[in-house]
Amino acid sequence: MNEFVYIEKYFKPLTNEIARDLKNDAAIFNQRSGYDLIISTDTLVEGIHFFGNEDPADIAKKSLRVNLSDMAAMGAKPVFYNLALSVPKEKVRIFIPKFAKGLEEDQNFFNLKLIGGDLTSSLKYINITITIFGETLSGKAISRSSSKLGDYLYVSGVLGLSKIGLDNFYLNYKELELAKKRYLIPEPRIDLGIALQNIANSMIDISDGLAQDATHLAKNSKLSIELNLNKIPLPKIETISKKNKLNFALYGGDDYELLFSCSPCHKSFLKNLSSKINLKLTKIGEFKKFKDQYLIFKNNYSKPKDAYMHF
Amino acid sequence: MNEFVYIEKYFKPLTNEIARDLKNDAAIFNQRSGYDLIISTDTLVEGIHFFGNEDPADIAKKSLRVNLSDMAAMGAKPVFYNLALSVPKEKVRIFIPKFAKGLEEDQNFFNLKLIGGDLTSSLKYINITITIFGETLSGKAISRSSSKLGDYLYVSGVLGLSKIGLDNFYLNYKELELAKKRYLIPEPRIDLGIALQNIANSMIDISDGLAQDATHLAKNSKLSIELNLNKIPLPKIETISKKNKLNFALYGGDDYELLFSCSPCHKSFLKNLSSKINLKLTKIGEFKKFKDQYLIFKNNYSKPKDAYMHF
Repeated sequence: MNEFVYIEKYFKPLTNEIARDLKNDAAIFNQRSGYDLIISTDTLVEGIHFFGNEDPADIAKKSLRVNLSDMAAMGAKPVFYNLALSVPKEKVRIFIPKFAKGLEEDQNFFNLKLIGGDLTSSLKYINITITIFGETLSGKAISRSSSKLGDYLYVSGVLGLSKIGLDNFYLNYKELELAKKRYLIPEPRIDLGIALQNIANSMIDISDGLAQDATHLAKNSKLSIELNLNKIPLPKIETISKKNKLNFALYGGDDYELLFSCSPCHKSFLKNLSSKINLKLTKIGEFKKFKDQYLIFKNNYSKPKDAYMHF
Repeated sequence: MNEFVYIEKYFKPLTNEIARDLKNDAAIFNQRSGYDLIISTDTLVEGIHFFGNEDPADIAKKSLRVNLSDMAAMGAKPVFYNLALSVPKEKVRIFIPKFAKGLEEDQNFFNLKLIGGDLTSSLKYINITITIFGETLSGKAISRSSSKLGDYLYVSGVLGLSKIGLDNFYLNYKELELAKKRYLIPEPRIDLGIALQNIANSMIDISDGLAQDATHLAKNSKLSIELNLNKIPLPKIETISKKNKLNFALYGGDDYELLFSCSPCHKSFLKNLSSKINLKLTKIGEFKKFKDQYLIFKNNYSKPKDAYMHF
């Protein structure tokens, strides 16, 4: 099968009218005034972001979900995406049908469609780039830059799970199952992101670890964040010490929980929202006037380590 | 230097206001009614689409221009793009500054800006995915599917140059210079594409060779194209036989000339346009009622070969 056959058989069924049956050189999106189009791109590389021996359906879901998480962080409703996929010849026959199945399942779950892309071979490793598109009413997207002095810092869910899952990927203990699952397939917090549109002053999804992503929020608003280490929500895994769990939360990354700032007056709104969407929301810090450093650890902790860097 | 430093130093200067200084999880594009946003993605993979030892500035230009050519084929005005770049650690220090320089030069030349993307490492090979965005008035994009019975088939420029350049890349003959240059850095026909918005019934850019791309046009309109082999515009390279040049034109690919159908009544418009933009436009065929095959060779020629396939 050549690439046209793969596209026709596996990818065309995933498209909507914007893709025009993939029969043109490009997709056509009819703009509507009063709305912003929110655009983000994330690449997953074999050997860097995934092992390569995972189920291709899971790799597809992870690729889509790390992008969906960027939409959540902007408070945007995801509407469609495109896909650039490079696969070595010897892997293509097995990889593509399962990969497309994973996309299909998640498209249905998150209610979005494929609009186009590119399928090519590569010499050795798989490379997946998804560009995702979301919408907000004009001017309603949440930035990383508008935190205010006195804002509270909140985080969704628990932190550190994904790194625990990655580090213990080949261990078969029941209490590690959720962590391994979360590493394989993140949970983008779309509903939460949209619900925070008129609440959060700034927001980011935690992809590089709490320490680094909190630093982004503080730095972009030229404030300091005082982080209460005792309040950071950690997973209930008894065989891992609290100190190690805190380390995973601060520096592990790939959690894709939302970290956001808002005025203290929204406390009760957030409590109700948390019940409504069945997702823990925890106040873990406060925004203070900047002095010396962007991130201040309350309750003693060793100096911040470095987050994962590509280069 | 880590990826944040590369992004800040080399890519942020290439952005416009849609990128919001690359400080968010996504770019924000304010939609306007009455316009379509035209979206296309092309990937270039080291070892597949380029050797890897070219000047990174040339690789950047090629990456951008193959995408610009898709905008040309839609009759769209390119307005911005995003970039997903994966580079092995050992190449990043040399590659990125030159690559960004190439992008900058072409951005200025084609008047468009970067809005975001992703920079990651890869284990061995460079992978470049650009998603390009163009605009047309609503409904004005040119498809591949609306050719009419009796339409003429036109092509811009000359065909086969790029494949000649590729096959003779290490030969230093003066008459091969243009071919080698064209292989390295294509010439997207943006002005022509826009000028054809109310003229062409269907259009495609020739990336897979005339035979295959003409077949796309015929097939999408359920017509046959009778191709006049004597009329195909070929390069003036005396050391290559006419038969070989015709082969390169039909099956070589990477020419990025525009192939379009239009009513015979536009003949004099096209003659004037050709003078105005200083680009040869040649009538090479006609659309006939479909029978047996999509592509019919007028003036004897051996059976069509296969175009380049990825898998």
